[in-house]
Amino acid sequence: MILCKVIGKVVCTRKDEKLVGGKLQLVIPVDCETLKETGKTQVAIDTVGAGEGDIVLVVGGSSARLTPLTKTSPVDSAIIAIIDTIEANGKLTYSTGR
Amino acid sequence: MILCKVIGKVVCTRKDEKLVGGKLQLVIPVDCETLKETGKTQVAIDTVGAGEGDIVLVVGGSSARLTPLTKTSPVDSAIIAIIDTIEANGKLTYSTGR
Amino acid sequence: MILCKVIGKVVCTRKDEKLVGGKLQLVIPVDCETLKETGKTQVAIDTVGAGEGDIVLVVGGSSARLTPLTKTSPVDSAIIAIIDTIEANGKLTYSTGR
Amino acid sequence: MILCKVIGKVVCTRKDEKLVGGKLQLVIPVDCETLKETGKTQVAIDTVGAGEGDIVLVVGGSSARLTPLTKTSPVDSAIIAIIDTIEANGKLTYSTGR
Amino acid sequence: MILCKVIGKVVCTRKDEKLVGGKLQLVIPVDCETLKETGKTQVAIDTVGAGEGDIVLVVGGSSARLTPLTKTSPVDSAIIAIIDTIEANGKLTYSTGR
Repeated sequence: MILCKVIGKVVCTRKDEKLVGGKLQLVIPVDCETLKETGKTQVAIDTVGAGEGDIVLVVGGSSARLTPLTKTSPVDSAIIAIIDTIEANGKLTYSTGR
Repeated sequence: MILCKVIGKVVCTRKDEKLVGGKLQLVIPVDCETLKETGKTQVAIDTVGAGEGDIVLVVGGSSARLTPLTKTSPVDSAIIAIIDTIEANGKLTYSTGR
Repeated sequence: MILCKVIGKVVCTRKDEKLVGGKLQLVIPVDCETLKETGKTQVAIDTVGAGEGDIVLVVGGSSARLTPLTKTSPVDSAIIAIIDTIEANGKLTYSTGR
Repeated sequence: MILCKVIGKVVCTRKDEKLVGGKLQLVIPVDCETLKETGKTQVAIDTVGAGEGDIVLVVGGSSARLTPLTKTSPVDSAIIAIIDTIEANGKLTYSTGR
Repeated sequence: MILCKVIGKVVCTRKDEKLVGGKLQLVIPVDCETLKETGKTQVAIDTVGAGEGDIVLVVGGSSARLTPLTKTSPVDSAIIAIIDTIEANGKLTYSTGR
């Protein structure tokens, strides 16, 4: 899984019927210490109610279909958790304060 | 999933029998803000009737087989939606006007 | 899927028993407009009788096992079509004349 | 599989229900000779009780679900072994002394 | 599949129970013409008895589990053949003399 930041969303009306119901978020990979962007944007289906700006855990490949929402959907990327804290190299590098 | 632009197609007569019936589109990844090309062209099977120039959602890997059209096909890339709007970093960066 | 050119082959006698019967071709990704090489060589099992120099469609991952020849084989790359024509950005960039 | 070093962890309370119970470690790919970092950090579920600083074996994709702990979980990366020794190019490049 | 050279091995005693029995080889991708290293080292389970220095065929992803040895193992990379000869761009670029 990779750490990503939610930066937006896409909307589409002409789509595979199994995509109905899930929000399609734009996410970008971030560094675990600086939280700076480190990769290319992708589109992930949101299974946990994440919002813009949240740091989230994104799973890829067939495992993106192992959630109740995505079981039979043609998706290869899903947000499966909202991160509360990150500890990297002995430091707390991110915390939502929860 | 990734955002791509449809830029052409390929035709082949000598092919796996399960490829019959699906249109093989050439797609190239694009940036979610500028819509400039950001990666290499790939060939995706079209499941939603996309046309050249459309911004589409492309799913990869085994999940490309989770559509009615591709269930048992040897495909690892499928167009599963045509994008209407993209919102990234607080701006509307793309809209078809639908 | 990606467009590749067949550039050679490998032979091996000590191998998994399910690899018997399929030809192992060397393929290299090519650009859809210039047909110049754009990536690293890989080894793909040939399911359609491609020959050296042919431009072919290569499928990767578990989907490479969705052909009659490869159903239970430990392969992650298969040639599933021989390309007749490529149209990219409004131009015919490749044609076998078939 | 790839060799990684454990460099931290993430905590999340809002997550897919199947993620409960597994520790989410931050791991970074390392070189087999120098043990220097060679890639980007990822998040892997720990199935063997690894600790910070350990050199571990990380499996990706659907195979990350082939452990007793992860069988039905939406995970694409798992720590499946703690490395005792590495031999590369004729030299012992790493040893825990076990 | 990719062509790799076997350059060493790793040993681990604390590991997933299904990893017992398979040798974990260090392999590095090589060029099909020069046999020079072209990528990063990975760890592959050996299913054919390869030795250090051998040029081998490595399969990745779920297909690495399609051998008798790896059927239910959490592995994403397996050596499935030892290469005898490579022909690339009209030349014999490698031969074991078998």
